[in-house]
Amino acid sequence: MVESFKLKEDDAVRVDGVALQRSTTALFAKLGVPADDAALAADVLVSADLRGVDSHGVSNMLEVYIDRYLDGTQNLTPELRVVRERASTATLDGDRGLGVIVVPKAMEMAVAKARETGVGVVTMSNAGHLGMAAYHAMLALPHDMVGMCMTATGPQVVPTFGREPRLGTNPIAFAAPAGEEQAFVFDMATSIVPINKVRNARRMGHPVPPGHIAGPDGTPIMEETLAPEDFLVMPLGSTRELGSHKGYGLASMVEIMCSMLAGANFGNRLPRHAFRHFVVAYNIDAFTDVAEFKHTMDEFIRDLKSTPPAAGQERVMVAGQPEWEALADRKANGIPLHHEVVEWFRGICAEHEVRCEI
Amino acid sequence: MVESFKLKEDDAVRVDGVALQRSTTALFAKLGVPADDAALAADVLVSADLRGVDSHGVSNMLEVYIDRYLDGTQNLTPELRVVRERASTATLDGDRGLGVIVVPKAMEMAVAKARETGVGVVTMSNAGHLGMAAYHAMLALPHDMVGMCMTATGPQVVPTFGREPRLGTNPIAFAAPAGEEQAFVFDMATSIVPINKVRNARRMGHPVPPGHIAGPDGTPIMEETLAPEDFLVMPLGSTRELGSHKGYGLASMVEIMCSMLAGANFGNRLPRHAFRHFVVAYNIDAFTDVAEFKHTMDEFIRDLKSTPPAAGQERVMVAGQPEWEALADRKANGIPLHHEVVEWFRGICAEHEVRCEI
Repeated sequence: MVESFKLKEDDAVRVDGVALQRSTTALFAKLGVPADDAALAADVLVSADLRGVDSHGVSNMLEVYIDRYLDGTQNLTPELRVVRERASTATLDGDRGLGVIVVPKAMEMAVAKARETGVGVVTMSNAGHLGMAAYHAMLALPHDMVGMCMTATGPQVVPTFGREPRLGTNPIAFAAPAGEEQAFVFDMATSIVPINKVRNARRMGHPVPPGHIAGPDGTPIMEETLAPEDFLVMPLGSTRELGSHKGYGLASMVEIMCSMLAGANFGNRLPRHAFRHFVVAYNIDAFTDVAEFKHTMDEFIRDLKSTPPAAGQERVMVAGQPEWEALADRKANGIPLHHEVVEWFRGICAEHEVRCEI
Repeated sequence: MVESFKLKEDDAVRVDGVALQRSTTALFAKLGVPADDAALAADVLVSADLRGVDSHGVSNMLEVYIDRYLDGTQNLTPELRVVRERASTATLDGDRGLGVIVVPKAMEMAVAKARETGVGVVTMSNAGHLGMAAYHAMLALPHDMVGMCMTATGPQVVPTFGREPRLGTNPIAFAAPAGEEQAFVFDMATSIVPINKVRNARRMGHPVPPGHIAGPDGTPIMEETLAPEDFLVMPLGSTRELGSHKGYGLASMVEIMCSMLAGANFGNRLPRHAFRHFVVAYNIDAFTDVAEFKHTMDEFIRDLKSTPPAAGQERVMVAGQPEWEALADRKANGIPLHHEVVEWFRGICAEHEVRCEI
């Protein structure tokens, strides 16, 4: 997350993660989500808040999820259906379940297959938003597996040289265990930023940096600017010269693996809230010695962290490190939420007659 | 490839691809590479030339490959060894074989596994350079499979905020079949450009665009400049503000999948010419109906191509399209090579007493 998008500590109230999770679980349960699933959904959201991924935490996603249950888009009690299956692969129909609830079940299936054959790949159509993609990739870690998760969303990102959004922010998340070091956890939108971050910045009156968005005619806005109401998000790479065709290509790849491989149509032909998901678990033991893998991961992570910093920079970090640091801080000191967000959350609890613990 | 790096047609001689391939095959054979392998190596190189990927064609790679055979780095007659194997996965020791020759054999194994279990994943350590990564991903296409290929190279790319190269250009290639449209073929370095392109530009006296390279202290060079002798290549994303942490994370992910999962060490701990490779084949039929997949791919590709262009732009392309267009042109009209390159190639043939057909 770029600095300009960050919540100023002055405006923030520190909220206990456990309390936030209990209240969020109660909210889902009150809507009719079964108890285990409600707890899982709350865990995905609050994990994002704890890891510093505010764009995918309670404040940004909860209301959308509630709305999708209330308007009937999401099924409260989805029954996953296996469309096709082989020893290492499965295609699932998500039965309009919310992604935060059904994707962990897909990953569980991938892990079971990887245990048998070395790798498990599960695609899923007809499901809702999956929250922070890293959550699902990380589910492979306790099994000594490498996890991957991708998701195809509604069209928000402009192809290189285009003036209409045709692809989602289509993120790629990847998690690999280490030994003494924290796991390597990488989670990126294939757009230059998740669209939520631009919307948040706009809401909070913060400008977005040059090259992040384009105006309605597709021309990249190359100066710092307050996002207009009508904007297009650039693919990773920003302009063609800086490699936007790579972000565009990655987004297309994610679309193919999540949508077409799941037997679904692509984002531009589907309703906005019909997401497609793709998870993989790689069983490390099938490839190499697990202890050796973890030891080399430690060495690799230390090698990257010990890179001499560029002039004017303090340190070189490794993917997942800011989130591990946020997690340590927020578990100890609470999750910083804007006081208006706290009021809003209390209001939601009141509206649904759920006890608010924050 | 950015325009400024392109060969001016005036300096180019058009060379017949078949003739170039025959002479290249003869060169490898003369060195002691078995006939089938020599033909394969030449096919990988000339395919790059035909597809317009000059950075990975004969002119840029052949001499390196010859040198690695002559100095004993590469084994003329490698015998691939299976280190570990499961129903869907294998880890191979490349026995110091050149990647262009041994990686197609890894993909063949992945395809066979995918036919049985839905997916095949093969990692390989102890091998040489694999040429254009897309070549290997595309080997899955005739089997109605989606192919992927990644490779970890020696450290050339600087981590975000760092001043020393710690990661390779670590490319990701991906190929998915379509029906009436050409296959979707995507091949990107996770650096902002392949280092070869910067070297080529330097050799030809062309400047590199802003944000592509950093000076020796790690500071990104934000104006158009002739690359100095000492330069650092930026990750995809260029600066932190534009998302270089994403290119850096992708490069790390490629390193983990190619190196650590293959039981190998990472690039910064290995000799420069010790590459690690990773290939996957996804059997489409295991996931969904193949004809439906291809039909949706056609629709997807057409949807992207039909995106209204941004102000001042002519058209929106899809990954692989420039290469398919180059292939049609170059098959019909020959491969444009700088006249100095033609002289150089003739010299190599003379030196190795091989008949030069170009």
